[in-house]
Amino acid sequence: MNDLIAGVAASLRPATRGPSLADIVEMLQSLPRKQAARTLAQMADEQAVGALNRSDFTTAPEVLAVLPVARAVQLVARMADDRAADVLAEMDTHVAALILAALPPAVRRSLDILLAWPADSAGGMMTTDYVAAPAAATVGEVLGQIRTAERSREAIYSVFLIDDTGRLAATVSLRRLIVADPASVALALADAGETVKASPDTDREWVADLIRRHDLLALPVVDAEDRPLGIVTIRDVVDTLVAEHTEDAQKFGGVEALDRAYLDTRFGAMIRKRAGWLSILFLSEMLTASVMQHFEDALARAVVLTLFIPLIMSSGGNSGGQATSLIIRALALGQVRVRDWWRVALRELPAGLVLGSILGLLGFARIATWQGLGFYDYGPHWSLIAVTVAMGLVAIVTFGSLAGSMLPFALQRLGFDPASASAPFVATLVDVTGLVIYFSIALAILSGTLL
Amino acid sequence: MNDLIAGVAASLRPATRGPSLADIVEMLQSLPRKQAARTLAQMADEQAVGALNRSDFTTAPEVLAVLPVARAVQLVARMADDRAADVLAEMDTHVAALILAALPPAVRRSLDILLAWPADSAGGMMTTDYVAAPAAATVGEVLGQIRTAERSREAIYSVFLIDDTGRLAATVSLRRLIVADPASVALALADAGETVKASPDTDREWVADLIRRHDLLALPVVDAEDRPLGIVTIRDVVDTLVAEHTEDAQKFGGVEALDRAYLDTRFGAMIRKRAGWLSILFLSEMLTASVMQHFEDALARAVVLTLFIPLIMSSGGNSGGQATSLIIRALALGQVRVRDWWRVALRELPAGLVLGSILGLLGFARIATWQGLGFYDYGPHWSLIAVTVAMGLVAIVTFGSLAGSMLPFALQRLGFDPASASAPFVATLVDVTGLVIYFSIALAILSGTLL
Repeated sequence: MNDLIAGVAASLRPATRGPSLADIVEMLQSLPRKQAARTLAQMADEQAVGALNRSDFTTAPEVLAVLPVARAVQLVARMADDRAADVLAEMDTHVAALILAALPPAVRRSLDILLAWPADSAGGMMTTDYVAAPAAATVGEVLGQIRTAERSREAIYSVFLIDDTGRLAATVSLRRLIVADPASVALALADAGETVKASPDTDREWVADLIRRHDLLALPVVDAEDRPLGIVTIRDVVDTLVAEHTEDAQKFGGVEALDRAYLDTRFGAMIRKRAGWLSILFLSEMLTASVMQHFEDALARAVVLTLFIPLIMSSGGNSGGQATSLIIRALALGQVRVRDWWRVALRELPAGLVLGSILGLLGFARIATWQGLGFYDYGPHWSLIAVTVAMGLVAIVTFGSLAGSMLPFALQRLGFDPASASAPFVATLVDVTGLVIYFSIALAILSGTLL
Repeated sequence: MNDLIAGVAASLRPATRGPSLADIVEMLQSLPRKQAARTLAQMADEQAVGALNRSDFTTAPEVLAVLPVARAVQLVARMADDRAADVLAEMDTHVAALILAALPPAVRRSLDILLAWPADSAGGMMTTDYVAAPAAATVGEVLGQIRTAERSREAIYSVFLIDDTGRLAATVSLRRLIVADPASVALALADAGETVKASPDTDREWVADLIRRHDLLALPVVDAEDRPLGIVTIRDVVDTLVAEHTEDAQKFGGVEALDRAYLDTRFGAMIRKRAGWLSILFLSEMLTASVMQHFEDALARAVVLTLFIPLIMSSGGNSGGQATSLIIRALALGQVRVRDWWRVALRELPAGLVLGSILGLLGFARIATWQGLGFYDYGPHWSLIAVTVAMGLVAIVTFGSLAGSMLPFALQRLGFDPASASAPFVATLVDVTGLVIYFSIALAILSGTLL
């Protein structure tokens, strides 16, 4: 007990009184690599480990790699194991192997388990730093176990109760343990029914969803025989949600997800992440040139038609982007399932018609006003042109809303992430079809007069 | 103590053994309002309150409003106070007032405090259901206080220590209390330095940021005199992050944030949330028609130039959208500050030039190939046209990357949320300027030949 109190007292010393860890990390991130390594090397162990443990210290792998190996080993050995695994996984494999080999055997073993799983799986997110007690233990015995457990970064959220065969029998929350009679059996305090748990290959989005749905503070990760491997906490979920938000935003913007902070991404990597999609979109959008070539005669006879092409195309893309962004989130939140596609279609069809009509009226008004006030002369058939533009808008906005809303369903159905439906992807889809729709309407309305 | 054990035992009874609360909420959400109310009225109190307490039960306000007032009052009185306040805030004010008036005075008082703050502030997010002890208390006394505290939805994350004047002196985690000697003074276990806390009007994004930065499980909310008002937990942060993700995605897609699930949003509300931005974008995009009218002579003489307008414009919009989505997240995560705008500009300028050159080469190759293979005849000056298109792409993609990356900085600088820089907003900005750039390059290169 004295050791423990001394440990608590140590954490009260000046180290934690100065700048907060968040500030220290920010400072280290802003320094050039070598200078950051020198600063880290000179810090008290406690503080250096605290900084390295923070997931916002994104340059930690590079900074550790520059440190003398012996010092890096000292620090990694004291880091939280899940964070240490994440950092090692991002390091040059050669340097990571050197550090791993020099770690104490117990630390190396738990890191080996964590490193076996991808970072975006339950196995990659979990820590092996959980508290377990036999299923037959009393409340008092379990509390004793917690008191003697090593101090660690992770707060204790719940305790695993293990049966004779090593399987996870149940979990009990710290809250219930404190409230209960120390002589009672801990297992009686467990939640009834199945214990919610995950296997190490469970996807991180599903892990976050389990924790949210079941209102957990921590989720046990078990192997195929139900033996506990580790624990994923609600804190890990917060990090996951933030990372996902960033990835989704970048994907919707038509960029492959960057793995690091914007300013930490090398120029070449940045170009690669952007050039791929830009080029694919560009090649698809070339179809617009083909469509225009196809309608070249009409274009040459009625140049006035071209004036509205950017306006009409962008409106289709905009309405499509709106619908896509709404449906991506509705699917992600489980508010809508793939089987609901027709309910969405039945909403987007009238929504598109109404929105298209609003824009159509605005477009008609614009042409009529410019003609009436003499700002521009659209020729004797100006009213037919205005009708063409208005009807084009109704048709294209309706098509955009429908196509934009159905695209995430199609992607989900085909086994892709619906969030990979980006705004530019939808815009490209709608641009090509939109031009065909516009020219078809123009030919129908204007043939015999302008065309 | 016996009461408490009976309470815990009660929660083990069949109520929790059947379908999980998550399943029950899903079922209630899928029913028509009146039928959901009938089902809810027939459930055991425990289960009904459990379902109402879940934030994914988004139709709870409507369902409660359909229940007989006496039954609604019974249920609301037993709900977690922060969730009850959220639900009442969303109800018809007349019905909410009826329910509030009939609640037990103690419940009404704590709800009145919570209802005084907007839902997206610390005051609106917090629960008043925290545990406080005098600053002079021993560890044993504080643990006793926890044991006698009423059972509640919120797990206990930490305990407030209050000084003689009623101010928050410090917070202590449950973990430390369990580990410490019961006879020691609880205050000695507190974190050194300033206690991290928020005032009730703190914005929810800032609350989430504080909890993440300082690795907290719960954040105290205090009044101007430092007296505790409530507590915001990491669970509330998870809900906040998910809500923000949805809002940001909708804003980036050019939709005003919906307040409810997609299928629960009324048709009229859906149109209003979408028509506003669509119309503003449409009116701005009308400038493209004006630009085209301005260059009408050139268009009439070289219809071939119009063929590439959609291609070039969309490329500018796509590169702008990429840059915007990258910078919005970098700003949100604090990876980039407003004062870093020039560092971003110095990256986006060369990035835009490289990306533009890649697309320019693709564009040139396309025209040369079609001409060479006889798919299309761009006329005797085809090579000049190809150069025009290629140079237009370099200029417009560079402009798009720069404009798209600077827009979130400009919005932040002007006091707006950088996340309101939507993809269609950037595309519109780039479209209008892009056309001017394209035609200017065409006039410079082609005058004397085609123009």
